Amino acid sequence: MKSFPESVNDLIFQFTKLPGIGRVTAQRLTFHILNSKREYSQGLSDALSTIHTKITHCTICHSITESDPCVICSDNKRDDTIICVVENPYEIFVFEKTNSYRGKYHVLGGVLSPLDGVGPEDLNMDSLIERITPNIEVMLAINPSVEGETTSLYLAKILMEKNIKTTRLARGVPVGSDLEYIDQATLIRAMEGRTSV
Amino acid sequence: MKSFPESVNDLIFQFTKLPGIGRVTAQRLTFHILNSKREYSQGLSDALSTIHTKITHCTICHSITESDPCVICSDNKRDDTIICVVENPYEIFVFEKTNSYRGKYHVLGGVLSPLDGVGPEDLNMDSLIERITPNIEVMLAINPSVEGETTSLYLAKILMEKNIKTTRLARGVPVGSDLEYIDQATLIRAMEGRTSV
Repeated sequence: MKSFPESVNDLIFQFTKLPGIGRVTAQRLTFHILNSKREYSQGLSDALSTIHTKITHCTICHSITESDPCVICSDNKRDDTIICVVENPYEIFVFEKTNSYRGKYHVLGGVLSPLDGVGPEDLNMDSLIERITPNIEVMLAINPSVEGETTSLYLAKILMEKNIKTTRLARGVPVGSDLEYIDQATLIRAMEGRTSV
Repeated sequence: MKSFPESVNDLIFQFTKLPGIGRVTAQRLTFHILNSKREYSQGLSDALSTIHTKITHCTICHSITESDPCVICSDNKRDDTIICVVENPYEIFVFEKTNSYRGKYHVLGGVLSPLDGVGPEDLNMDSLIERITPNIEVMLAINPSVEGETTSLYLAKILMEKNIKTTRLARGVPVGSDLEYIDQATLIRAMEGRTSV
């Protein structure tokens, strides 16, 4: 007997498909589950089984939600005149945590990446254009990676052709950081965007 | 909306119960599952759900198995005169990988730990004593921790009272290690157990 029983091997194999979990960690997780109560593995199993049934994407902003339209899109108290454009649903919760944004959101579902074959038609760009009314502001909050910057510029061009006010997050020195360790690109952006005290 | 939808929060919570997985990793795993195909999360869910149904403990050696008695206990070609005593089923597979042991096993299911309330009656000791015949050798392969050493000594005392040949794994310098970084306790044991070339 060189290997584990089939069902143990199967669970190890399923765990290794998760990001950041290698063979050894998967074995450790599997044996932890074998040693723990049946209720726990059943709880995790049920949560995994139902998540794709319960979670859908909001037809307006494309965020994850249990009801369509989502809580934010169906909230009349929120500001309709500003849309924050993000890559993924996760980032909406990052903004919500700040308690400082009362507008709406739009999830692109990724960034333009010609090398990976991701073009404008693969992202939720058409539905963003459809949502736009003349007096709206679009705040681009796409990650400042190379692909993210390209996507921001691409979207900004389309929006500005339609005379839509388009903004993006300020680049600069993060709060609480140490200038000694800041990268050059960030420092250059921080100087360019300096504000009067 | 400050937090994720309920089913997302539930899956994050279930993941955080796994060893070595904190809140941030659990969120990452959950969003990975949300972004991956339904078949994957269903596969992991099924594997988790069936593992406790399919896996039982062998009534002879207490290892995990899909059939009782397990493959090793029911293998007539294996050496009946030596029993390797290990803490957990996982360690059986570590021994099997070496391709150098053809005897049988016995899983204790832990080590003596008075502080955690684990006494001899909580471990599979009685069933080990029952398995013993006069000409058998018991090889203690319990982890060399403080509790493991205590358990080994406790078992050895019982076995020697019954005139059973009791051995334990050699302590010494691991193959491929560097003497510069070896701890003192291991080096002392290696000197004590030195062998002629």
